[in-house]
Amino acid sequence: METNMTKGYEEEFNKLKLPDDLKKLSYEQCTRLCKEIRSTLIKTVSKNGGHLSSNLGVVELSLALHRVFSSPKDKLIWDVGHQSYTHKILTGRLKDFSTLRKENGLSGFCKPSESEHDAFVSGHSSNSVSAALGIASAMKLNGDDHHAVAIIGDGAATGGLSFEGLNNAGKSNTNLIVVLNYNEMSISKNVGAIAKYLSNFRTKESYKKTKTIVERALDRIPVVGQPIKNTLKFSKDTIKNSIFRTTLFEDLGFEFVGPVDGHDLEELEDALNKAKMMKKPVVVQVNTIKGKGYAPAEENPGEFHGVSSFELETGNPDVSKCDSYSSVFGCELSRLADEDERICAITAAMKYGTGLDKFAKSHKDRFFDVGIAEGHALTFAGGLASMGKLPVFAVYSSFLQRGYDQLIHDLSIPNLHVLIGIDRAGIVGEDGITHQGIFDVPFLSTIPNVTIYSPSNYDELRACISKGLYDDSGIVAVRYPRSSDNECSLKKDYISTNYELYENGSDILVITYGRLFKQVSYAYEMLKNDNKVIDVLKLINLNCIDDIMIEKIMSYKKVFFFEECYYNGSVSQRLKNKISNLCTTAINDFVPQATVGSSLEHLGLSGNMIYKKLSSEI
Amino acid sequence: METNMTKGYEEEFNKLKLPDDLKKLSYEQCTRLCKEIRSTLIKTVSKNGGHLSSNLGVVELSLALHRVFSSPKDKLIWDVGHQSYTHKILTGRLKDFSTLRKENGLSGFCKPSESEHDAFVSGHSSNSVSAALGIASAMKLNGDDHHAVAIIGDGAATGGLSFEGLNNAGKSNTNLIVVLNYNEMSISKNVGAIAKYLSNFRTKESYKKTKTIVERALDRIPVVGQPIKNTLKFSKDTIKNSIFRTTLFEDLGFEFVGPVDGHDLEELEDALNKAKMMKKPVVVQVNTIKGKGYAPAEENPGEFHGVSSFELETGNPDVSKCDSYSSVFGCELSRLADEDERICAITAAMKYGTGLDKFAKSHKDRFFDVGIAEGHALTFAGGLASMGKLPVFAVYSSFLQRGYDQLIHDLSIPNLHVLIGIDRAGIVGEDGITHQGIFDVPFLSTIPNVTIYSPSNYDELRACISKGLYDDSGIVAVRYPRSSDNECSLKKDYISTNYELYENGSDILVITYGRLFKQVSYAYEMLKNDNKVIDVLKLINLNCIDDIMIEKIMSYKKVFFFEECYYNGSVSQRLKNKISNLCTTAINDFVPQATVGSSLEHLGLSGNMIYKKLSSEI
Repeated sequence: METNMTKGYEEEFNKLKLPDDLKKLSYEQCTRLCKEIRSTLIKTVSKNGGHLSSNLGVVELSLALHRVFSSPKDKLIWDVGHQSYTHKILTGRLKDFSTLRKENGLSGFCKPSESEHDAFVSGHSSNSVSAALGIASAMKLNGDDHHAVAIIGDGAATGGLSFEGLNNAGKSNTNLIVVLNYNEMSISKNVGAIAKYLSNFRTKESYKKTKTIVERALDRIPVVGQPIKNTLKFSKDTIKNSIFRTTLFEDLGFEFVGPVDGHDLEELEDALNKAKMMKKPVVVQVNTIKGKGYAPAEENPGEFHGVSSFELETGNPDVSKCDSYSSVFGCELSRLADEDERICAITAAMKYGTGLDKFAKSHKDRFFDVGIAEGHALTFAGGLASMGKLPVFAVYSSFLQRGYDQLIHDLSIPNLHVLIGIDRAGIVGEDGITHQGIFDVPFLSTIPNVTIYSPSNYDELRACISKGLYDDSGIVAVRYPRSSDNECSLKKDYISTNYELYENGSDILVITYGRLFKQVSYAYEMLKNDNKVIDVLKLINLNCIDDIMIEKIMSYKKVFFFEECYYNGSVSQRLKNKISNLCTTAINDFVPQATVGSSLEHLGLSGNMIYKKLSSEI
Repeated sequence: METNMTKGYEEEFNKLKLPDDLKKLSYEQCTRLCKEIRSTLIKTVSKNGGHLSSNLGVVELSLALHRVFSSPKDKLIWDVGHQSYTHKILTGRLKDFSTLRKENGLSGFCKPSESEHDAFVSGHSSNSVSAALGIASAMKLNGDDHHAVAIIGDGAATGGLSFEGLNNAGKSNTNLIVVLNYNEMSISKNVGAIAKYLSNFRTKESYKKTKTIVERALDRIPVVGQPIKNTLKFSKDTIKNSIFRTTLFEDLGFEFVGPVDGHDLEELEDALNKAKMMKKPVVVQVNTIKGKGYAPAEENPGEFHGVSSFELETGNPDVSKCDSYSSVFGCELSRLADEDERICAITAAMKYGTGLDKFAKSHKDRFFDVGIAEGHALTFAGGLASMGKLPVFAVYSSFLQRGYDQLIHDLSIPNLHVLIGIDRAGIVGEDGITHQGIFDVPFLSTIPNVTIYSPSNYDELRACISKGLYDDSGIVAVRYPRSSDNECSLKKDYISTNYELYENGSDILVITYGRLFKQVSYAYEMLKNDNKVIDVLKLINLNCIDDIMIEKIMSYKKVFFFEECYYNGSVSQRLKNKISNLCTTAINDFVPQATVGSSLEHLGLSGNMIYKKLSSEI
C-alpha cells in the first residue's frame, strides 16, 4: 500500500523499531522525518479526507513525546484524537496509513483495539485529563513509575469534563502530565475566558520574564521591600503563591512548564523532560500553529479542520461546497430570526458544521458560541427560554449525548420551550463509531414531553422548524442527517410535519422516516420494475402514531419498519408493542467507520437491501 | 397551619408585603427576623426532615439578597436549591412552610411552578451559572437593566457545568452576579483544587490587603520600581493583570468582590450593592458557616446536610441509624477489597450517602471522592479499568444521568469493565421530582453491552456485586433503592443473580424486580387470604429474559408486569414486544414529592394497588 512518503526514505523509516528507535535519531534526522510525515499527512488527507490542520500542528510535538516517553509503558492520551495521525505513523501504522478513515482501515481517532499505543478511546472532546488521571492513579497504586500524558487542545479545555479532571488532578500526587496544546482555535475560533486567558501567554514579552523581574526587584528593594516581605512571611504559603503564582493551573495545584514553541523539537523535549523529572502533576503549555507546513491550511485552519478529499496543489475541495441539511437549517433559522427578535441560536463550537455561520453574521447579538460545552448550551438555552426567548441549539447527535441530564432536569421538568437542531443524525460515515448519531431517538424517548421530528427533505425541515418554534411546547428536536437532499419519486403535493401515507393497494406496508425514506423510495421503484407494489408510511413527527393509525397499520398483512437508529428505544420497538406482524430493521450494536452507503448496506438499511428483503416477501 | 415562628412575631411578619417590605426593616429588625427564621428552620426540619446545615448557613445572605435586589424582576437562581428555605419564607411562603417536602406541599428545592420568585429549577447541582447567564443575556437583549444572581456553594462549583458557565459568563458583558457561598463543604468535606484554592481566602490576614500593600509599595519605589513599571507599561494589560489580579475568577473575566462575612448583614449588603453597581459579571465571595445557629448542626454539618426528622433538643435522629442497601453495598465492597487489591471505589461527593465511608477508612489509597463530578467519575473509572483495576462508582440514580455520554463513549465503546452501584433507584420520596431514580433502566438500556442487576434483598445485592466484578464484563450496573431490606414471605433457599420463579399452578403470572418484589409479595399474601393464587417471576438480572423464558411466560393466560421506572425504555416495554397478553404498570411522567409509600400507591405500584389490580382479574 502507498504510504505517501518519499520512496527511499520510506524503506529507511520502516527499518526503525517503533516507537523506541525514534529516541536514537539525531535532530537532523528528526527534521527530515517531520517533513516526510507532513507530506504523508497532506497527501493522505487530500485523498481520504480527515483532520488536517490539527495534525499538521502537532508533528514535532508527537515526535518529542515519543522521544521523551516510552509508549506503551508511558501512556499517551490524545484528547479528541483527531490530531493523532503522526502518533499513529510513529507507532508502526505507516503501512496502513492509506486506509485512514476507510472501512476496516485505521480510525481517524485513537482506538485501543487498534494499537496498544492508543491508551484510551477518543472522539468526543475533553475526556483526556480524567482518563489520564485514572491511568496515573492506577500506576501510583501499582508502584509503577511511568507517566500518563494527556494531550489536550485549548478548544477541548473549554469542556466541563476537562475542568472536573483538572480539579481532581492537581492534588493527586501522580505522574500525570497535561500537555496543553494552545493553537488559538478548536474548530472555529475559540471562545470563553479560558481561551482568552491562555492567549496572554502567546505574547513575546513573556509573562514569565516579567514575573522574574518583579521578584528580583522586590528582592533588591531596601526600604519598602521589607514590609512586603514581612507581610508575605507571616501569611500562608498560599497567599504568597497568589501573588507570585504564574498561572491558573498553579491555582489548580499543578506545576507549570512553558509556554514552549511547539515546532521547536529541542525546546519541546527540554520542557517534556523537565515535566517528566518532576514526578507530580504538571501542565506543559505548547504553542502550535494549526496547519503548520501547508500554506492553504495555515491560512484557513478552520476550513481544513475536518475535510473531505481536496486538490493537493490548491487546497480546493474536490467537490464544490454543496447545499446540505445543515445549511438549510441555518438559513431558515436566520430567515425566521429576521422577523422574530425572540429567536436566539446557540452552538457548541460548531458554527460552520451546523450551518449557523449565516445566523451568526446576521444576528450577532443573538448568536452564542459557547465552546465545547453542550451541557451549558442546554441550560443556558433554558435560561433564555425562561425569559420568553426562543432559543435554538444546533448540535451533532452524538454530542447531544453529553446533555442528557440537562435535557431532563433543566428543560423537561420545568417544561421550557427549546428547539434542538440535531445534525449528523443517523450514520455519519468515516468518522466512525464515536460519531454515529444512532442514540438520539432512543435517549430522547426516555424523557417525558419531548417532540421529535425527522424530516426527509428540505421543505419538511423548514416546516418542522416553524412548527417546533411556534406550535409546539417543551423540548422539540428536529433531526437531520449529514447529507444533502436529493430527488425522490415518492412525493406529495403538500408539505406535512406529521406523516405521509402512500397507498397503492398493497397488503405490505413499509414504515420509515428521515433519510431512509429515500432508500425506501429506491426499493419502491425497484419493486415496481418487478411489477410488485408496496404501501409506504413516512413518519415526520416520530410521536405521530395514534390509535387510528395503529388500526390502519394493523390492517396490513405484513408491516416492515426500517430505522436508522439503535433498536432499544427506537420507534419501531415501541410500535412492535402494539403490532405483532411487524418486522423491524434497526441497529443493534455500535457501528464502525465506513462510507454511509456501505454502512447502510451492512445494516440492511440501504435501498438495495430493503429491496432484497421486501422482494423475498412479496 | 403552624409556622413555627413566635406567635406574636408571626402576625407582624405576615403584615409585610414580601419581599419588597424587607427593604424597609432596620438592622435591628433584621436581626430579630433572622433569629425567628432560624428557629422556624430548625423546628420544621426536625419534623419534616430536609436540608438543615446549608439553610442555617444562608439566613443572612438570603435576607441581604432580597434587600438589595428586587425579585422577581431581579432573578435569584439558587444552585441545587436545598438552601432556599429562607428565600421561600421571605417570598411569602411562610404560611405553607410546614408542608415542606410533604405531598402537595412546598418543594425542598426551587420550583418555578411554585413561585414566581423561584427563577429556575433546581435540585441537581451546578446549573445555576449557566441558567443565570441565559437569563442575564435575555435581559441584555431586552434592554432590561435588572440582574440575574446565581448563588452557588463551593461544592457545586466542582461540577464541570459550573465551569462551562463561568467560562462563558466572564466576558458576556451582562448583569450577572455569581454569589459564591464558601462554607468549606458540600455534603461531605469538599475535595479538589478549587475548594483548596478558595480556602485561601478564609485566612484573616486578607489576601486583598496584601495585594494593596504590594501595589502601593511598587508605586513608591524610586529606582527599581521604574523598570518594573516600564515592563508593565509596554506589556499588554493582560500581563499586568496576571501580576496584580486577585483571583482565579478575574482570570475568568469576572470582577471580584469579597470575601465577606456571610453572617454580617451590613457587610453582605455593602458587597452586594457594590456588585450591583458594576453592571458587569461579578463574583462575590461570601464565607458562611454551615449549621449556623444550631449547635448540633454547627458541630456536625455533614450529618445535618440532609436529614430525616430528629429530636429538637439533642439533634438525635428520630429513628436509630438503621441498615440500608447503601450501607450493605459499602460494607460488602470493603470486604471484597480486603482480599482484592484491584478494587477501587469512587464517589461524587456522596461518601456517606452511598455507604462508602467504611471503604474510605479501610482502603484510603483506593478511595476517590471526586467532588460533584459524575462525568469525571466515570471516565476516571475508565482510566483505572484500562490498567486492570476493578473500579466501582457508587452514585445516585438521578445523578448518573449526568454521565450518559461517558457511559457510551468512554466505557461502552472500548468495553471497559466498570461496576456502577446505582443508589436511590426508583422512587425516592420527599426529595421529589428532580431526584426520582426512574430513568436509569431506560437510559442504560439504550447503551450496548450494559448488564443491569436489580437485587431485591441484601443477599442478592452481595451476590450481584461479586457476579458483576468477577463474572461479567463491560459496564455492570447494580441498582438498589433508598431503603432497607425487610422480611418477605416469598423466599427461595438459594441466592440467584438471574431470576426466581415461584410456581403455584396459577394461570396468572406476575413479573417484577427490585423493591417491588416486596410489594408483590404483599399482594400475593392478600390474594392467598382470598383463596387466590398467582405465580411470580422475580427478575434480578434485567437482561435475563431469553427465548426459553419467553416461551414459559407465554404459557400463562395473563401476565402482569410491575416496574418502578419510566415506561419508555423499561423492561416491560421490551417484553411487551414479544408477549401480547402482557399488562404493564410502570411510570409515564415525572413523579412529584410524597412519601415513597404514597407515590407507589398513586402509581399503582404499592402492594395494596397490585392486590387490587390482580384481584379484579382473578
